[in-house]
Amino acid sequence: MDVDIGNALASVASPGISREGLERLDERVATAHERIEAGRANDEHGYAALNLPERTDPDAIRAAVEPVADVDALVTIGIGGSALGAATITDALADAGDGTEAVYLDNIDPAWITRRLEALPLESTAINVVSRSGTTAETLANFLVVREAFEDAGVDWTERTVVTTGESGPLRSLANRHDLAAVSVPDGVPGRFSALSAVGLVAAAVCGHDLEAILEGAAAEADTLTGSLFECPAYAYGATAYALDARGASMNAMVPYAESLETYAEWFAQLWAESLGKDDLGQTPVRALGVTDQHSQLQLYRAGPRDKLVTFVTPRKTADRDIPGTDVDELAYLGDATLGELLEAEFEATEASLAAAGRPNVRVELESVDAFELGGLLYGMEAACVLAGELYEVSTFTQPAVEWAKNATRGLLGGGEFEEAEAVAEKTTLRVER
Amino acid sequence: MDVDIGNALASVASPGISREGLERLDERVATAHERIEAGRANDEHGYAALNLPERTDPDAIRAAVEPVADVDALVTIGIGGSALGAATITDALADAGDGTEAVYLDNIDPAWITRRLEALPLESTAINVVSRSGTTAETLANFLVVREAFEDAGVDWTERTVVTTGESGPLRSLANRHDLAAVSVPDGVPGRFSALSAVGLVAAAVCGHDLEAILEGAAAEADTLTGSLFECPAYAYGATAYALDARGASMNAMVPYAESLETYAEWFAQLWAESLGKDDLGQTPVRALGVTDQHSQLQLYRAGPRDKLVTFVTPRKTADRDIPGTDVDELAYLGDATLGELLEAEFEATEASLAAAGRPNVRVELESVDAFELGGLLYGMEAACVLAGELYEVSTFTQPAVEWAKNATRGLLGGGEFEEAEAVAEKTTLRVER
Repeated sequence: MDVDIGNALASVASPGISREGLERLDERVATAHERIEAGRANDEHGYAALNLPERTDPDAIRAAVEPVADVDALVTIGIGGSALGAATITDALADAGDGTEAVYLDNIDPAWITRRLEALPLESTAINVVSRSGTTAETLANFLVVREAFEDAGVDWTERTVVTTGESGPLRSLANRHDLAAVSVPDGVPGRFSALSAVGLVAAAVCGHDLEAILEGAAAEADTLTGSLFECPAYAYGATAYALDARGASMNAMVPYAESLETYAEWFAQLWAESLGKDDLGQTPVRALGVTDQHSQLQLYRAGPRDKLVTFVTPRKTADRDIPGTDVDELAYLGDATLGELLEAEFEATEASLAAAGRPNVRVELESVDAFELGGLLYGMEAACVLAGELYEVSTFTQPAVEWAKNATRGLLGGGEFEEAEAVAEKTTLRVER
Repeated sequence: MDVDIGNALASVASPGISREGLERLDERVATAHERIEAGRANDEHGYAALNLPERTDPDAIRAAVEPVADVDALVTIGIGGSALGAATITDALADAGDGTEAVYLDNIDPAWITRRLEALPLESTAINVVSRSGTTAETLANFLVVREAFEDAGVDWTERTVVTTGESGPLRSLANRHDLAAVSVPDGVPGRFSALSAVGLVAAAVCGHDLEAILEGAAAEADTLTGSLFECPAYAYGATAYALDARGASMNAMVPYAESLETYAEWFAQLWAESLGKDDLGQTPVRALGVTDQHSQLQLYRAGPRDKLVTFVTPRKTADRDIPGTDVDELAYLGDATLGELLEAEFEATEASLAAAGRPNVRVELESVDAFELGGLLYGMEAACVLAGELYEVSTFTQPAVEWAKNATRGLLGGGEFEEAEAVAEKTTLRVER
C-alpha cells in the first residue's frame, strides 16, 4: 500500500501535525521499531503475527481442506478475529474465486441462523469452525446447531468439517474423536492479527484464492518496515493516526472506495478498537463506505466537531462499466463518463472537500483489489496498529475488558459461579414507556 | 419503543447526567416541544416529517406498485435517505414478507453493480428508482445502467419501473414520457426523514409488508410526544444523548441485538450525522451489532476513552432455536439453553459490563421486531433527532456541507464550471510508498 498523509498536515487541517512534529515523532517511531523487531525476532506474543508471511504454509492449508475442496458453499463458524479476517479476504476477492459461496455465522440471532441454514445447499456445503480456545460460547453453540442441521438433512458432517483451533481444548478433542480435518492456530497470534494464518486462509483456500499471492503481498509490505515513518507506509499510517488522536481526532473513519472492501473496514475496526482501546486510551474506529456514505456521514465529517481523522482506501485500477448516454440535458455529463470515472471523481471531490474545510484525512492507495495488494493492506494495517500500540504505550495484544461479560454470561446460563452474574440483577433503571 | 436511561445517570456512569440535570433539561424539552408542535401544525420543512403517520396513504402506494406486485425481485436505485429507510424496513421484516427479494443499488462501484445485476432474474425483476430532485448523479447513472441491462435482456423496463421523485425534474419528465408508475416524494420531508413516506414504503409494499401496521406503530409513538422527557420515550432518548454529548460522550454507538436491525443502525447513522453534524457540533454515530461486536468493539467501549454513549436496541420476544446438547463437559451449560437465551444473557451481561465500568448506556426495548414496533422505532428516533436538533440549536433539516463535493464532482466530469473542481488539483501531498 502507498500512503499519502499530506492532508493530515497542520498546514492543511486542524487537528493536523506539523512537519516538525512528524520529525520529532519519527524518533519515537525508530525506538518503537526496535522494540517491534526484537519482538519479532523472539516470536513474542503478538509480535509473532508480523512473521506470518514467512511462517504460514499455504500447501499445508490446501492439504487440510482438500477433502472439502469441491463444495459449493462453505459456512465459517467463528466470531471476532475468528471470522473477520477470513470474511475480509473472501469478500474482497469474491470475483477472483472459484465460485464457492462463503457464508459466515458470526452471530447467534436464532431467526437469522435459521434463515441462513435454510438458504444453504447442505449436501454440498462444508463447515469451517474456528476457535482458538475451543470454548467460545457463540461459536460452539452455532457449531452444535449446524451439526444437527446436517444430521437432520442426512449429511455426514464429519466428512465435511474443517476445524481451526489450538493444540488442546474441546474443539481439538472433538476433531480427534471424529477424525476431522484440522489445522492449528499459530502460537502467539491474537485472533485479530490472524488473518494471514490458517484462521484467515482456510476459507480462502476452499474458495480457490491464491494464498501465495496474499502472503507475497504481505511479505512485500513486511520488507518496508524500517525505523522511519517517512520510508514505511504502514508506520506513516500508524504514526499519523496516533499523532492526530493526540491532537483531538479521537475517531478514525475508515472509508474504502470499493464495495469489496466493506468487510475490510469491519476487520480494521476490530484490529484498531481491541488493540488500542484500553487504559482510557484508543482511537475509535468508525466504519463507512464510499461513495454511499457521502450521502450519510459527509455532512458530519465536514462540518461537525473537529474530532476525526478520515482514512480513504482507494484502488488505482478497477473493473469499469459505461454509463449509457441519455437525451436528458441535465444528465448528459454522466453519459460521457464510466461508473469508474464517476467513482474516482467523487472520491477526489470528497477528499478535497474535507481538506478545503480543514478536516484531516489520509489516502491509502492500492494498485487494485487483488490477492497481492490485499495481503499488503492487511499486513500494513497490522503493522500500523502494532506501531500505534507502542506509541500509546498500551498492551496491544490483550483484551482484558471482554472477560467480565463472558463470565457474566456463563453465570447467567448456569455455567458456574461468577460474581459478575450477580451484578446484572442490580441494574439501575429509569424507564420511560410508551 | 420503551427507553431505559438508568445506566446514563451520573450515579452509574461518567459521563452521566444527574437527576437534577435531567429536571433542568426537561424545561428545555418543554420549550423545544412547543417549537416542534408549531412546526408540525404549519407543516414546516422537516417538522412535516412528524406528520407522516397520518398523511401517508398506504392504499395509494399499493395502487402505484400494483403493476409490479408479482415480481420475484425488486431493485431499488437510490442513495442515502432514498435507500436507507426502505432497506431498513425490508431487511428488518424480511421474514414477514411475501418472499420478494429486495436489492439496493446505493453505490456506483462498477464490479459490484455488474455482480448484482448478474445475480438478478431480470425477467421477473422490477425497478424502484428514488430521487427527489431527479438529478442525483449516482442514482441516475445506476438507473441508466440498469435500464440498459433490462433492454439487453429483452425485458421492457417501462412496464417494470416505479419512480419516486418530486413534482418536477428529469426523473418526473422521464416518468411522464414513458408513462411509468410514479409516486411523489412528500413536500417538506428531507430524505433521511422519509422512511414513513412512499420513499420508504414502495419497497415494503412490493415485498408484501403490512404498511398499515408500520404507520400505526409510528402513530402510536407520535401520540407519546409531550412536553416532558419523563413521559415520552423518544424525547427521553434524544435528551439523554444530547446531555451525554454535552458531558463528553461525543460518540453514540448504536448496537441492535438483532441481525435484522443491522440496516436500522445504518439508517440511524445517517439520521443522526446529517441532522446534527453542523456548526462544529453533533454526536458521531457508530454502527455496531450485538453479539458480534462484543468480540470486536467491547474492549474499547469498556476500557477506552470515556467519550461514548452506547445505545442498545433489543426486542423482548424473538424466534428461538434450541442448542443441541453435547457430551463435552465444558460446554454442557450451552446445551441447557436456546440460542435466544444465550443472546439475551449476552445482552444483559454486556449492558451490565459497561455499567460496572461506569460507561453510560441506554436500552431501547421493542416488543419484537415486527411492522408495528419498527414503525414506532423509526418514528421515535426521528422525533428524538428533531428534539436533539432543537437542544443543539442547529439547522436539523439541511445538509449544506455535502454540496461542495457534489459541485466538485460535476466540475471534474465536465458537467459545468465549478470552482470546487479546481481545488481538487491543488492537493497537498506527502507520499510514503512501498
